[in-house]
Amino acid sequence: MRIAGLMSGTSADGVDVAVIDIKKDNVRVLGFETFEYPKELRKNILDLCYGKTCKVEDICHLNFVLGEVFTESVITLCQKNRIKLSTIDLIGSHGQTIYHNPKGKLFGKKVIRSTLQIAEPSIIAYRTGITTVADFRPKDMAAGGQGAPLVPFADFFLFRDKKLNRAVQNIGGIANVTYLPANCKTENVIAFDTGPGNMIIDGMISIISKGRKKFDRNGSFAEKGRVDKNTLDALLKHPFLKIRPPKSTGREDFGSRYCKYLYDKLIKKRLLPENIIATVTAFTAVSIARAYKRFLPKIPDEVILCGGGARNKILIKMLEQQLGQTKFLLSDELGISSDAKEAVSFAILAYAAVNGIANNITGATGAQKPLVLGKIALP
Amino acid sequence: MRIAGLMSGTSADGVDVAVIDIKKDNVRVLGFETFEYPKELRKNILDLCYGKTCKVEDICHLNFVLGEVFTESVITLCQKNRIKLSTIDLIGSHGQTIYHNPKGKLFGKKVIRSTLQIAEPSIIAYRTGITTVADFRPKDMAAGGQGAPLVPFADFFLFRDKKLNRAVQNIGGIANVTYLPANCKTENVIAFDTGPGNMIIDGMISIISKGRKKFDRNGSFAEKGRVDKNTLDALLKHPFLKIRPPKSTGREDFGSRYCKYLYDKLIKKRLLPENIIATVTAFTAVSIARAYKRFLPKIPDEVILCGGGARNKILIKMLEQQLGQTKFLLSDELGISSDAKEAVSFAILAYAAVNGIANNITGATGAQKPLVLGKIALP
Repeated sequence: MRIAGLMSGTSADGVDVAVIDIKKDNVRVLGFETFEYPKELRKNILDLCYGKTCKVEDICHLNFVLGEVFTESVITLCQKNRIKLSTIDLIGSHGQTIYHNPKGKLFGKKVIRSTLQIAEPSIIAYRTGITTVADFRPKDMAAGGQGAPLVPFADFFLFRDKKLNRAVQNIGGIANVTYLPANCKTENVIAFDTGPGNMIIDGMISIISKGRKKFDRNGSFAEKGRVDKNTLDALLKHPFLKIRPPKSTGREDFGSRYCKYLYDKLIKKRLLPENIIATVTAFTAVSIARAYKRFLPKIPDEVILCGGGARNKILIKMLEQQLGQTKFLLSDELGISSDAKEAVSFAILAYAAVNGIANNITGATGAQKPLVLGKIALP
Repeated sequence: MRIAGLMSGTSADGVDVAVIDIKKDNVRVLGFETFEYPKELRKNILDLCYGKTCKVEDICHLNFVLGEVFTESVITLCQKNRIKLSTIDLIGSHGQTIYHNPKGKLFGKKVIRSTLQIAEPSIIAYRTGITTVADFRPKDMAAGGQGAPLVPFADFFLFRDKKLNRAVQNIGGIANVTYLPANCKTENVIAFDTGPGNMIIDGMISIISKGRKKFDRNGSFAEKGRVDKNTLDALLKHPFLKIRPPKSTGREDFGSRYCKYLYDKLIKKRLLPENIIATVTAFTAVSIARAYKRFLPKIPDEVILCGGGARNKILIKMLEQQLGQTKFLLSDELGISSDAKEAVSFAILAYAAVNGIANNITGATGAQKPLVLGKIALP
């Protein structure tokens, strides 16, 4: 089965498209690209997301506009990679999240949790002539789940092993782990945010470079510094690290406000910039390792790394030091490029949906039971 | 197959629920009821519809709230009619339209037409345990159609005849006809708004009674009056009546502003109130008859009446006088109560969707081709 996966993150930069072939459980990526949104479209989407008032007609319009944009991106990717559109059997689309409220809001005496993704799948299905599965979150929320994260199902599908206990460690802004015990079923999978990923490192680099640099390429800045043990110990007291999973975090915990506060404190302690970066890099590494030791049934035999942080050599070296026996590899080494993984995930979720395979991980979302998520739009 | 149909109109009064059994092409209605929305919910929906600014979170929330409300109404109807929920195979839900823009809006150089119905089908499917088909409009619009009207497909399904040319005449606020030539296929069906239904009659009754009466029950007020021929001829010059179908009209043409203007004019002409009502009733009847004569390939052998106007005896009598050879009957006489027909229609549309039967009427919506409309949410 040949499937296209479409994903757009909350930053609303653009849409990721991947095309994969699935043969039994074997996945091969045929093509991948990120298509940036036109500037004004991105602005319009972010205006919606960040609580500015709008009119219903704006949302109605943007839903159909994004349906067209998603369609164009699939068609363009196929042309560039010489994939005939007619050979694609299925499309899975996460859509563009414009609101997500897992805590819920009262309606009468009932708490109603809700989520809203746009990029009309009927448009995608009609224009491409390909059955499109979308809207994966709502049913998980109907069943008491958070509607997210959804990628752990793809981690399970792609990386579970008969004999090895594996973890898939994504290091984006936030770091999150999917734990796949040997020979596991979806019910045995655990997934949660371990804490900061690149967010603090990026934040500090940005402050130190006065906005000229966005991240510590290859960890080369951290490499020059020394970890300040006292500071590291203090950072590791962050309350999020002790919360039992399932749990999730974000900018509210480790974003620019936290970084500003921390930077001012460390400068007062006369830490050199390179030592600051080394120390917050260690914080990320140790917080991941401690999460494993505290919350996973066993320390994984193998950790499969993905996300931008997987390219930070010092971060990974520190992580390896923390988990002595564990083998580390990049998802790329297993055939799934780190960049493509999210888009690939939604192709896999759609594959499961049309085959009637439950595609939520209750140990990740907290839903009451395994469910086949996704609404189906026929071409 | 046992199917529940759910429909909520643009007035957002509440949700209509019907449960039907389909055996071959035979439809039997097992239960029907309208469940009014709680007052505040209705206010919130109408606030969205009438262009007030809102937040994305309001729409996100209301989509899930209406999912719960629709679910409850199906469950309650089943309990009242002693229908076991587990015997229902399928649900078809139109949802609550909160925006519909068939004319479209520019995105770059492209005109994007769009529509937005809410009442999350994943919630309905999960809570009831029944596959739910919803969102019928978007794909028709993707194919260049108006996304509406959708009921003509149900008219075709319910009322087409091997030998007779039939018309289904709905007389709601606006009057609309579905023409079903003998032994027709969906491609041969024509449907359009003929012009005013009860809208002008109701408007005049309301002005004359200073808001105490809402409509001319049984046509008893019109019965006392005489039609003013000159006025009728003038009314029949309304430009909408000459437009070739497909066409649609609404409050913008025949709503309260038109009524106020017309009333002032007729009072100046010293028409008695009962003569005013008789005359506007004749306007409705003659505009329907003229639409048949102008735009239908043949005058129908039978007209099946539905909508509130079907109960206005004088209106129907006038219509019969206009179309001498035609037999008139109520949809109720063919087993489908006029009140239930819209909800029944969405059960039929869902039935077609899961059986892969094209369920749009291109002669009604203007879509480029017959399509299977509806997104499928599995339980």
